[in-house]
Amino acid sequence: MIYFDHSATTHPYPQALHTYQEVATKIFGNPSSLHSLGTQAGRILEASRRQIAELLSVESSEIFFTSGGTEGDNWVLKGVAFEKKAFGKHIIVSDVEHPAVKESAKWLSQQGFDVDYAPVDKRGFVQVDKLAQLIRPETILVSVMVVNNEMGAIQPLQAIADLLADKPTISFHVDAVQAVGKVPVSDFMLDRVDFATFSGHKFHAVRGVGFIYKKSGKKITPLLTGGGQEQDLRSTTENVPAIAAMAKALRLTLEDQEAVEKLKSMRDVLAESLASYDGVTLFSETGEDFAPHILTFGIKGVRGEVLVHAFEEHEIYISTTSACSSKAGKPAGTLIAMGVPTSQAQTAVRISLDTSNSMAEIEQFLTIFKQIYQKTEKIRH
Amino acid sequence: MIYFDHSATTHPYPQALHTYQEVATKIFGNPSSLHSLGTQAGRILEASRRQIAELLSVESSEIFFTSGGTEGDNWVLKGVAFEKKAFGKHIIVSDVEHPAVKESAKWLSQQGFDVDYAPVDKRGFVQVDKLAQLIRPETILVSVMVVNNEMGAIQPLQAIADLLADKPTISFHVDAVQAVGKVPVSDFMLDRVDFATFSGHKFHAVRGVGFIYKKSGKKITPLLTGGGQEQDLRSTTENVPAIAAMAKALRLTLEDQEAVEKLKSMRDVLAESLASYDGVTLFSETGEDFAPHILTFGIKGVRGEVLVHAFEEHEIYISTTSACSSKAGKPAGTLIAMGVPTSQAQTAVRISLDTSNSMAEIEQFLTIFKQIYQKTEKIRH
Repeated sequence: MIYFDHSATTHPYPQALHTYQEVATKIFGNPSSLHSLGTQAGRILEASRRQIAELLSVESSEIFFTSGGTEGDNWVLKGVAFEKKAFGKHIIVSDVEHPAVKESAKWLSQQGFDVDYAPVDKRGFVQVDKLAQLIRPETILVSVMVVNNEMGAIQPLQAIADLLADKPTISFHVDAVQAVGKVPVSDFMLDRVDFATFSGHKFHAVRGVGFIYKKSGKKITPLLTGGGQEQDLRSTTENVPAIAAMAKALRLTLEDQEAVEKLKSMRDVLAESLASYDGVTLFSETGEDFAPHILTFGIKGVRGEVLVHAFEEHEIYISTTSACSSKAGKPAGTLIAMGVPTSQAQTAVRISLDTSNSMAEIEQFLTIFKQIYQKTEKIRH
Repeated sequence: MIYFDHSATTHPYPQALHTYQEVATKIFGNPSSLHSLGTQAGRILEASRRQIAELLSVESSEIFFTSGGTEGDNWVLKGVAFEKKAFGKHIIVSDVEHPAVKESAKWLSQQGFDVDYAPVDKRGFVQVDKLAQLIRPETILVSVMVVNNEMGAIQPLQAIADLLADKPTISFHVDAVQAVGKVPVSDFMLDRVDFATFSGHKFHAVRGVGFIYKKSGKKITPLLTGGGQEQDLRSTTENVPAIAAMAKALRLTLEDQEAVEKLKSMRDVLAESLASYDGVTLFSETGEDFAPHILTFGIKGVRGEVLVHAFEEHEIYISTTSACSSKAGKPAGTLIAMGVPTSQAQTAVRISLDTSNSMAEIEQFLTIFKQIYQKTEKIRH
């Protein structure tokens, strides 16, 4: 089996699963309990928070646990909107955000908020000058992802941070879900960033856990109200085993200094080889402003899902666009936003690599690709 | 160690943890993925949903997975409120709801909704006649828990269902978090119930997973918008290992036919013995309208937290009130709502039993209780 769909989800690290199992078995107290079983669970919780904060060079009190990337994005979008609505009801999100951001923005627009979508250029990058034109006195939030999940484009966050430097009333949120282990933390945890979203299962933690970074002093209304956990900003009994597993997975991921180079070299071999086929369109690029693990391409005239299933017969797993919209059969939203015609966007498939992949797998993939490509000749002409 | 704090959280069943581990290791695909790893994960997801639905005698399409009881309560309260606000903005919750409901109602009142709190009588039961008086043409939601988490009182849901029988525009929500395995499912999954909240870790599943029941046809706006999972009503990559573990834990819990009798006999021995002490106040009762696993009592003049820590020295774990409010040092909200004076409410401690407890533990507890009681003599006089 060759798994090239790591942007959809990753396998949990055995060490992370081991931590999960250990904590779930031995430390089952509720951190809110007054007795020592609660205190013991609370210690694991706070040690995990501290470790994550240190890995990101932020304060522990700036880390809030969630159930994953979708909750994080929803919380920041809706939480900032409701918190700041007395000051303004205008929100800007990029046109290529994950549905967790885009649909949250859409929901807010149904609740009386005013949403603008910052356009991207033909290569998939947010156009900062056009974003600048959208800003109004009543703008309360700008949300732009770090790495686009469909194309791998690393968004110009520093330029957006510079743009927002003299606009302190605008909260700046970055969705970092696809960035962990692929882009240096310091490239997206910029001083000007107020909120950032993270999802555990995208970096080999377990499912159903994530966190947000909230800069100290920044205000947000809770999405989950109740027992007062997480500084009264995100109530629910804490998922301590999953949080401990996530802290471990984040450490293991960020400690791997050679990850980016390894991903790049595999991605570059893929890109170079695929580009040699006349009938192949490469949608994503391989420069420094693209994440090293994503490569999106298509065979002209062949629908992406046909390719996915053709590879599947060889136990090679790739994806059409993002997992979250693949079943809806929609072409990649990012490609459409880039101005790619629908017929061409529908050919797109995404390869998303991980350091657990090997150059041998890349070669095997390319061998199978050649076979599949030859079989599609009739469709292509 | 004697753990008598099962209303705070339970230990996961080894079988549930085993299922978690198996699924997390072997079935790591994203159910939204188009390829067979996704399909495989999707099958586990839907089999779990079917099993849970069958155990509750409802349809699979009426079960929606969440991250736990707090999310479930928040979703129903806020989701129904936002969905139906064009028809009315009045909500009624009982005065003894869990903070996940009460704080959600409070948050909604800050957003322009109108909230009434239905009072309880001296024994902790919602007064249905007073609730009836609160109903108005613009009432859109009534939310009442099945089993009160602090007292064990089983709320008069059938009477409330009868009251709402001719008011189809009011959604009826029950928080069933403390009810699973303690009250027959048919006693709270009444025909008139539109929504019900469940939390996995209260019935030996893992942390961070739960579900809601939403009656077919009933409308609710999502709390988590995004990739369109769960019939587009609760987006996020599904936590398949935890969901599979929860389905198993629910089956194991509900299959135990002797659980209620066992809990009752242990609770009754406790109650009878504690009642024989002059200085003891029994706050909860042992009749049929009280859940069999909860007993709340106090030693006159002794703060609950003192008792909790005294027992802790003997490795016996009990709780002051609910875990979710214990750290805030607040007296049990339910007791205050019942009209118990604050000074007396502050003495309250809660024992919450599980079928994994034994009569030998009850006896050991009572032996230690006697010692502690004697030591408190000076404080009592």
